[in-house]
Amino acid sequence: MTFIHDDFMLTGPTARELYHGHAERLPIIDYHCHLSPQEIAENIQFRDITQLWLGSDHYKWRAMRANGVVEEYITLGTRNAWEVFEKWAETVPYTMRNPLYHWTHLELKRVFGIDKILSPATAREIFEACNAMLAKPEFRGQALIRRFNVETICTTDDPADDLRWHKQIAAHPFGTKVLPTWRPDNAIAIADPKSYKAYLDRLGEAAGKNIDSYTDLIDALQARHDYFAKAGCKLSDHGLDTFHATDCKPLEIELIFKKVLLGKAPNAAEIDKFSSALLHDLAVMDAETGWTQQFHVGPIRNNSSRMLRMAGRDTGFDSILDLQISASGNRFFDRLDDEGKLAKTILYCLNPKDFEVMATMAGNFNDGSVPGKMQLGAGWWFLDQESGMRRQLDTISNLGLLSRFVGMLTDSRSFISYTRHEYFRRILCDVVGADVDSGRLPASEMERIGAMIEDISYRNAHGYFGF
Amino acid sequence: MTFIHDDFMLTGPTARELYHGHAERLPIIDYHCHLSPQEIAENIQFRDITQLWLGSDHYKWRAMRANGVVEEYITLGTRNAWEVFEKWAETVPYTMRNPLYHWTHLELKRVFGIDKILSPATAREIFEACNAMLAKPEFRGQALIRRFNVETICTTDDPADDLRWHKQIAAHPFGTKVLPTWRPDNAIAIADPKSYKAYLDRLGEAAGKNIDSYTDLIDALQARHDYFAKAGCKLSDHGLDTFHATDCKPLEIELIFKKVLLGKAPNAAEIDKFSSALLHDLAVMDAETGWTQQFHVGPIRNNSSRMLRMAGRDTGFDSILDLQISASGNRFFDRLDDEGKLAKTILYCLNPKDFEVMATMAGNFNDGSVPGKMQLGAGWWFLDQESGMRRQLDTISNLGLLSRFVGMLTDSRSFISYTRHEYFRRILCDVVGADVDSGRLPASEMERIGAMIEDISYRNAHGYFGF
Amino acid sequence: MTFIHDDFMLTGPTARELYHGHAERLPIIDYHCHLSPQEIAENIQFRDITQLWLGSDHYKWRAMRANGVVEEYITLGTRNAWEVFEKWAETVPYTMRNPLYHWTHLELKRVFGIDKILSPATAREIFEACNAMLAKPEFRGQALIRRFNVETICTTDDPADDLRWHKQIAAHPFGTKVLPTWRPDNAIAIADPKSYKAYLDRLGEAAGKNIDSYTDLIDALQARHDYFAKAGCKLSDHGLDTFHATDCKPLEIELIFKKVLLGKAPNAAEIDKFSSALLHDLAVMDAETGWTQQFHVGPIRNNSSRMLRMAGRDTGFDSILDLQISASGNRFFDRLDDEGKLAKTILYCLNPKDFEVMATMAGNFNDGSVPGKMQLGAGWWFLDQESGMRRQLDTISNLGLLSRFVGMLTDSRSFISYTRHEYFRRILCDVVGADVDSGRLPASEMERIGAMIEDISYRNAHGYFGF
Repeated sequence: MTFIHDDFMLTGPTARELYHGHAERLPIIDYHCHLSPQEIAENIQFRDITQLWLGSDHYKWRAMRANGVVEEYITLGTRNAWEVFEKWAETVPYTMRNPLYHWTHLELKRVFGIDKILSPATAREIFEACNAMLAKPEFRGQALIRRFNVETICTTDDPADDLRWHKQIAAHPFGTKVLPTWRPDNAIAIADPKSYKAYLDRLGEAAGKNIDSYTDLIDALQARHDYFAKAGCKLSDHGLDTFHATDCKPLEIELIFKKVLLGKAPNAAEIDKFSSALLHDLAVMDAETGWTQQFHVGPIRNNSSRMLRMAGRDTGFDSILDLQISASGNRFFDRLDDEGKLAKTILYCLNPKDFEVMATMAGNFNDGSVPGKMQLGAGWWFLDQESGMRRQLDTISNLGLLSRFVGMLTDSRSFISYTRHEYFRRILCDVVGADVDSGRLPASEMERIGAMIEDISYRNAHGYFGF
Repeated sequence: MTFIHDDFMLTGPTARELYHGHAERLPIIDYHCHLSPQEIAENIQFRDITQLWLGSDHYKWRAMRANGVVEEYITLGTRNAWEVFEKWAETVPYTMRNPLYHWTHLELKRVFGIDKILSPATAREIFEACNAMLAKPEFRGQALIRRFNVETICTTDDPADDLRWHKQIAAHPFGTKVLPTWRPDNAIAIADPKSYKAYLDRLGEAAGKNIDSYTDLIDALQARHDYFAKAGCKLSDHGLDTFHATDCKPLEIELIFKKVLLGKAPNAAEIDKFSSALLHDLAVMDAETGWTQQFHVGPIRNNSSRMLRMAGRDTGFDSILDLQISASGNRFFDRLDDEGKLAKTILYCLNPKDFEVMATMAGNFNDGSVPGKMQLGAGWWFLDQESGMRRQLDTISNLGLLSRFVGMLTDSRSFISYTRHEYFRRILCDVVGADVDSGRLPASEMERIGAMIEDISYRNAHGYFGF
Repeated sequence: MTFIHDDFMLTGPTARELYHGHAERLPIIDYHCHLSPQEIAENIQFRDITQLWLGSDHYKWRAMRANGVVEEYITLGTRNAWEVFEKWAETVPYTMRNPLYHWTHLELKRVFGIDKILSPATAREIFEACNAMLAKPEFRGQALIRRFNVETICTTDDPADDLRWHKQIAAHPFGTKVLPTWRPDNAIAIADPKSYKAYLDRLGEAAGKNIDSYTDLIDALQARHDYFAKAGCKLSDHGLDTFHATDCKPLEIELIFKKVLLGKAPNAAEIDKFSSALLHDLAVMDAETGWTQQFHVGPIRNNSSRMLRMAGRDTGFDSILDLQISASGNRFFDRLDDEGKLAKTILYCLNPKDFEVMATMAGNFNDGSVPGKMQLGAGWWFLDQESGMRRQLDTISNLGLLSRFVGMLTDSRSFISYTRHEYFRRILCDVVGADVDSGRLPASEMERIGAMIEDISYRNAHGYFGF
């Protein structure tokens, strides 16, 4: 039997019935990812499997470093495609029990039809087979997406972005809807005044107005928010260390903003107040537009100064932070709720200690207006693996309503990571199927149980986000 | 086979042997709950299943809100019993994998003998069947309690309470002992001076003395503590954000107290100092009386200001807090231990991150005077479900002595939530039975293992609390 | 079947194949323990099983106290060997599901060949059988170590230690290499100036120089570091509440040091700054010498003041702390990495909330120079049990490379706790074997999987530490 077979990860009979009968063939809604709209629009053709797999995947880079591979094979770009691939192939056997081992072989199987286990012994053969396929038109970016039956993709975009690639995709549809997501992290990042002012210039230009005050900033962001909404945007997203909900008078915010405009670095208390104010005002925009807001909370980034200088951001030197989130998070959402301005909300934690805090925080603000209005999101980043998914599923089950969960996303830069939806669906079916097989769910209710699997795999997201 | 059958949740042969042979028929000691002594004394007759199930159950209310049910069906009271019940019946199929799904069907089966799955299709029939039974005398409050073979109940009572209903129950015994529990949260809650002063008036009246100083407060509380002891009270209970053990001179406490009496709100440091002092003095009273003290640590309450105004407290808008508890907790108990004034103590956490911290904290203060003197309590509130129970059982097993665990409680306002004792016993037997079946416990020691199940289900609580 | 049989804890066929075919017979490298070098050198003969088991084991003491055994049977030393052993035998049946239950019976079986379950019924017989064996030469300290096929032991030693016993062992080899480990906790502990100054006298004497300044301290420590290196030391170790990485000018450190020399207690900020500086300087020494540094983070010690006075340190009154570790930890290692002075590093947490934080922190600083250069260490102390081990194995699998894990250690004062290596290997094989049996690892790769088991059980440590 091959490693990736029909019943991979499906332990019991009900798991198999649920997966093959309900989950397997549903389209994918990937409502949060980091695919490049330009690469989609230009229908990227990959030079080789090295570019596709190792061009920007910090998961793989971290694994290679941990396995003793030096940086010249990773971000320095001084080795050729085969040399880099060979190092990855040497690393793969050492990734057993890491999600990379499963993802790698799922992608080999689903994209390239390859059943072999990647190792030094098979590296050359797999390298050449993949490269030969990638040279064909049916392995260009859009075809790869279509191969996975992806119905909708939401990319991640800065408010200053002109969304030209989204427009180009819309003008030349290829079967998958590609929508922007509003991610205003740069508008909040006042810690470094120099880069912040440069960003304000870009943002002001996009919005067609000068930004000389906090009020100007809000006006500019509102203009861009409207622009994104017209382009079909349905979601916002924020990357946070923790929630911010400190009280602050409008004048105080203006003073902090002026200070930054003068090039003076704000202190921690000022950053907290500014973040509190701006995140609130942005959340109001989302509510008024009917979007869903997402909060990704808990990374500590760029921990290696040496590698930040050498390789830049997002190159595999981020990890899990451990701040408190409950008091400020509840205060943040309470204010919005109290003003009638709480949008649909999905909460993601990077630190697993926050799963239960977030799931119960979400429960405080459901008001019956939308099923699952506020909810715990899928296992994210370091938690996007079997243990993390099971923990997320158990948490939302015990402390919320699993049935209303909007399900999986890739959060990925890769055109072939859609296998993670398959991976998630298999685990979901295994979890629920095991409950049926052990009598924790009644076998007499298989109709509802099958419907729940379909809802979580596809229908909930379809209805909730309003694509 | 029906959903709730004899071997529900009992996976292996030893689990079944332990449950049916040792746990199933033992009486229940419910040493911590929130039943209304008045409703017990008056032998409440429920109008209908809606009142019984949905009259005060914030677990169900949260689930309904998360499922898209608006507040008029929940706390606003503008819909009739059937309309409310119908919304609950629509919600139940969406609670699969939430403990509510199990509790609901356990209660239908054990109280009403109903084996059907609750859903819109069965709602009317179940509604009418339950209501017909609830109209009978054998479904009044006391009979419901007796049905579950409950030997002892400890309610939760304010020090100012005159315990009249407890006296009335004692004067008209119905087979279950009902004792008060000393819960002095109101005496500690100085944050809002206005409501605190109103409380002091009530407390002073009950104690027969004016409360003009902290010393007066202690005298009044001691008088009420003696009064509770005479009424059979054996436990105290505290609801805390975290432990408080900050040093503070007596004069400083008096000054904080005077400030509050003058109607000025104390700051956070003053609240911490006052809480430190009063919790200590209350703990000394418990030790001197031979009571067991309980600490429920970790909720953040009333997170929705809007709903607090609309529906009041305890209506389903509380969640999990994430403060540090180790340093202050250890300091708090060390002082008491050092003075020879440490009572038997049970620690409950709401945040699962505190399980291991609390279990090892308890281990610091066992002195051999009483087996299991200080111990980790049962999975509480959001953790009162299968995963939480398993985590609590594993934690007390690994970091303490499972054999000395005083076992389950309902913490509930409901007359029929005693099914949670059954639920707990099934899970306990499944956990221990699986260890026998996998060889982690020796099958040759089944006599001791059966005795351990009986101890945890009933005998430990009986001996430890001294009812 | 006996309790401890060949396939104890090995659930599936692959687990058994991996354990018996790959793990069982490999030598043990115990790279972190607290064995007494003097007792090894003097080839200790134990008076009886009470001394061997209960002479210094705070795990057992805590269990006895929790079971209602008073201190005269524990640290007070007022009861004879049989009386103490009898209390332990009464406690053992109450430790079911605690690791002590497994360790006890593994030790009875492997050291004494006893298959009986320890209880009051078997206590006398087991007591006498063990004592009779302990009187024989083949049960002296060195023979006990040899019995477990221990290749290398690393003890834990203060920088002021003259390592005389290590030299004596080296001069009279008995088949197991015994090396010192550099544990400079005392050099950092400035909180109590009086005991700190006494320590500086000892350290200065060992180094042959007066210590009148922080610079002197570093010089003295460097001299001792060199001395340890010459004696074969390959590892350092630190016990910390959390990481410390606060910026501080050299002059400021000197002033803090002078203050302490003058007998004035430093405040918390000064302790943090001093710890930051000294831990950094010590880490540089380790990097320059090619050692591996270990950080044990998270205990809160001596929580019972009463018992600290009565029984001293390390007598079973320590528990789990819950400070934040991510920001300071990442900053600490970033500085070293940025200076090119980051040694191989193993991170151990006592609070399980830190598993994921530490595993991803480690991933930030792998640079390809050594496979597994920085990694999460084995389950420690309260986490050294089956659940803790599984959690550590899953965490390093999901967030790092299990294949590069350097494996188990005893962290123990006992000559017979090497059974914990067996215990770990069985659990490791059960975890990995279950993945093969469920198709999560490919059965076709058994060669690599077997090699991984051997690497983690023995070869990784052998290569990584460079013994």
